[in-house]
Amino acid sequence: MINESVLGIIAGALTSVSMLPQLIKVVKEKNVEDISLLMLLVLISGLAFWVWYGFVKDELPIILSNVFAILVNMILLGCYILYRKKS
Amino acid sequence: MINESVLGIIAGALTSVSMLPQLIKVVKEKNVEDISLLMLLVLISGLAFWVWYGFVKDELPIILSNVFAILVNMILLGCYILYRKKS
Repeated sequence: MINESVLGIIAGALTSVSMLPQLIKVVKEKNVEDISLLMLLVLISGLAFWVWYGFVKDELPIILSNVFAILVNMILLGCYILYRKKS
Repeated sequence: MINESVLGIIAGALTSVSMLPQLIKVVKEKNVEDISLLMLLVLISGLAFWVWYGFVKDELPIILSNVFAILVNMILLGCYILYRKKS
């Protein structure tokens, strides 16, 4: 039987890697028109709750992958603030 | 102290809700040009590992939110197959 931490690390690595192309695209193209600020804030709050959950349950794969996801989405938030159209 | 299942349910609800606007946008606009097939497959595999992890750890919030995410991304995959440009 596969070790449960290994399982968590594989899961976290795959879902983390899958976030990178969108981040790279936004950073490169400086185009944030498909990003919803409200949804970004809802997502970051949700990820913060997952980190909290990971600490309560003492599960490192959950903490690490959600901290990584928060970082990615903080960068997207930064891009949103920098590049949004001023109308 | 807050109950850990409640924490997981809040976390899962927030991250699940945050996925819906993109899904609605793709379904409505029938526009999948921003979707990467490879990344969708990597993401769905990662989510499947999270579900497996949730079963091994016997944690319902992890199982439920990742099953929901798989559903959302399966619909995106379906849209991708239906609406991608044939070139």
